[in-house]
Amino acid sequence: MDALRGGFVTSAPLEGLHVVECASFVAGPTGGMTLAQLGADVIRIDPVGGGADQLRWPVAADGQSYYWASLNKGKRSVTINMRDDRGRELVMALATAAGPDRGVLIDNVVGRRWMSHEALSQRRPDLIHVRVQGHPDGRPAVDYTVNAEVGVPEITGPDEGGSPINHVLPAWDLVTGLSVSTGVLAALRDRDRTGRGVYIELALADVALSGVANLGWLSEVQARGADRPRHGNHVYGSFGVDFASRDGHRVMVVALTEGQWGALCAVTGTGAVFEALEKALDADLTREAERYRLRETIAAILRPWFAARDLVRISGELDAARVLWGPYRQMSAVAAEHRRGAHAVLADVELPGGGPAITARSPMRWNGEYGPAGQVPALGGHTAEVLAEVLRLSSAEIGRLIDTGVVAIGAGGGSGSYREPG
Amino acid sequence: MDALRGGFVTSAPLEGLHVVECASFVAGPTGGMTLAQLGADVIRIDPVGGGADQLRWPVAADGQSYYWASLNKGKRSVTINMRDDRGRELVMALATAAGPDRGVLIDNVVGRRWMSHEALSQRRPDLIHVRVQGHPDGRPAVDYTVNAEVGVPEITGPDEGGSPINHVLPAWDLVTGLSVSTGVLAALRDRDRTGRGVYIELALADVALSGVANLGWLSEVQARGADRPRHGNHVYGSFGVDFASRDGHRVMVVALTEGQWGALCAVTGTGAVFEALEKALDADLTREAERYRLRETIAAILRPWFAARDLVRISGELDAARVLWGPYRQMSAVAAEHRRGAHAVLADVELPGGGPAITARSPMRWNGEYGPAGQVPALGGHTAEVLAEVLRLSSAEIGRLIDTGVVAIGAGGGSGSYREPG
Repeated sequence: MDALRGGFVTSAPLEGLHVVECASFVAGPTGGMTLAQLGADVIRIDPVGGGADQLRWPVAADGQSYYWASLNKGKRSVTINMRDDRGRELVMALATAAGPDRGVLIDNVVGRRWMSHEALSQRRPDLIHVRVQGHPDGRPAVDYTVNAEVGVPEITGPDEGGSPINHVLPAWDLVTGLSVSTGVLAALRDRDRTGRGVYIELALADVALSGVANLGWLSEVQARGADRPRHGNHVYGSFGVDFASRDGHRVMVVALTEGQWGALCAVTGTGAVFEALEKALDADLTREAERYRLRETIAAILRPWFAARDLVRISGELDAARVLWGPYRQMSAVAAEHRRGAHAVLADVELPGGGPAITARSPMRWNGEYGPAGQVPALGGHTAEVLAEVLRLSSAEIGRLIDTGVVAIGAGGGSGSYREPG
Repeated sequence: MDALRGGFVTSAPLEGLHVVECASFVAGPTGGMTLAQLGADVIRIDPVGGGADQLRWPVAADGQSYYWASLNKGKRSVTINMRDDRGRELVMALATAAGPDRGVLIDNVVGRRWMSHEALSQRRPDLIHVRVQGHPDGRPAVDYTVNAEVGVPEITGPDEGGSPINHVLPAWDLVTGLSVSTGVLAALRDRDRTGRGVYIELALADVALSGVANLGWLSEVQARGADRPRHGNHVYGSFGVDFASRDGHRVMVVALTEGQWGALCAVTGTGAVFEALEKALDADLTREAERYRLRETIAAILRPWFAARDLVRISGELDAARVLWGPYRQMSAVAAEHRRGAHAVLADVELPGGGPAITARSPMRWNGEYGPAGQVPALGGHTAEVLAEVLRLSSAEIGRLIDTGVVAIGAGGGSGSYREPG
């Protein structure tokens, strides 16, 4: 059994909750994984052989997906042939199983009429059903298309560049995933009190639109009648930018508050320079907007200080002065730090087929403790166990479902040998 | 009163819940805003005159912050002088007020010993307290420093560029904000059942580390012993990239699945070309990994189709063929679309000092409906109301607190005239 469902973990506030997930890629699975890491039993249902994300990059040398493994850890994996009516019946039965701590479904299904909210809520009227979509009108979309559509790539990157620059982080997927977990828990609170179920639709495109609107970015272009120009690595509306060290590293330095600005001036010995500059230019650099206006000048004055020092010295001096800063790292350096035990939030897990992977615990420290990351399920590895436990199917019934290809107990489409659970 | 606390909104599952927020910038306020949009009464406490984010860019011509307005809409605003012992007592009393639907605090406080979890939980042992931090060891950090630290800027941007490229979207802040709302609701579910409170610490740096680890990126560099190279606007491990139209627009086109790839080949009439290419290169382009390997070749073959068409024609043809794609837009175009009523998730609000702003509703459609966005509070506008309602202070007591500068009922530090509520 999974360590996440052991019962003694203080960070398992959702213990006893059962969630069914029929979702792929990042958003829905992130929602399910988040709930699993808080102690819920999350049953992920995939088609026999795996869904569209089963082999998604990055992958190990043997083809196993690090991506799938990490986004689905802590869950139980069930594989069902959804082109078979009996398989569809099993999916519906799992999603709408009775009990106050069941009847919660996360999916990103498109076009399966048999899995419509209408059909499912006929079986369980108080079903909590969260559906992740592309556009709210049902058109498909992924993180990279909605990011383009809301204008973020147009303001990313060096000011001299002409073409939009995509983010590599599927940020909207991650935000959507955490919105899923929030929505599930809000709906559960409501159902516990009122008995009401709910159908929550959540479109990636809406998450992206609300994200940029909530930061005030759309208000600004509306008021000014012009788009914000690109400004390279500068933080908008304040002072923050990257500097190169003598030994070829880079650091990001930020001064949002007056205190942070003062610390930066003090450690770099530039206080008198900026004082004189303020007089010469009739500027007040204690104000964020003024630091932003004069960002290139400020950066040019600070640059030699960084260029004259190696990273280790910069690091020591900035930390001692309480400057807000961080080094740019390659991910290989982050992985190496993890090997030295630097990051308690990271964890090593084993892939189902063998081989190591780095994954993460929940970043929420619950009374000072990180919870377990969760084990990576073998695809279909919990099919028999879940059918017996949730649907009370007998071993003979499960055996027949396997033999007739309605369900599978492993990646190979039912070819694994079946033993009774326990 | 705020439309979010009216009682008739189907999307208000958290109605009756009271949350106190002492947080600034994006992460904590996003968590509070999310709960407010789901129906909670979120009481934001600021220092008299406003916190560090009160004037954060983007701002309107008169200096009002679109950013603050949008991230704090739907909340009630209370201003208290926290350098005064009586003010501190009020903050503690609000955060630890009695009742099963109170005693929930979100903050990002650093170094205020009187607001330590230890001090607060002595007043209310079952307090739910979520604290947003920079690094887990207490060192400060912001989105732009943690993003640099986990290596995302090093893999962002054109492959020919040498310098890291920062994201402009504070993605980790947003993910942290939705983690806050998830954590609050998970803790409430636990407290409702067990009576236990909790102290949840959530560091921005841990959110970023877990984000890249959960995508499998650290596993990959560990396995390969090398960092992933930059690949411009290409989607990693599959086919997806941007193309220019004849009329100077750009579109992002993605083919993750075999169906999406087939649709793209069909609409562009390149099926036979790719078939021949597969033979010539001994490749199988139905496989994502192969499409990624040959991404530049594929893009070069598709490019003339896009270059020969205006955006409107591309749009029609790709939609008809069910290709997964999206146009790159400037934010001014998104705002213009909003003026034409294109985006139901967006909403117009009025700033407290007058003047329009664009903000967003919750992207969760609750039984088919978007909820209200929430009104923007005037800074300190709810001070008297909240002190009377939550702490049962009399008008005379509130008047004295205002007169002695312990609290303020407006941005001007108590200079506004006070009237009894109701």
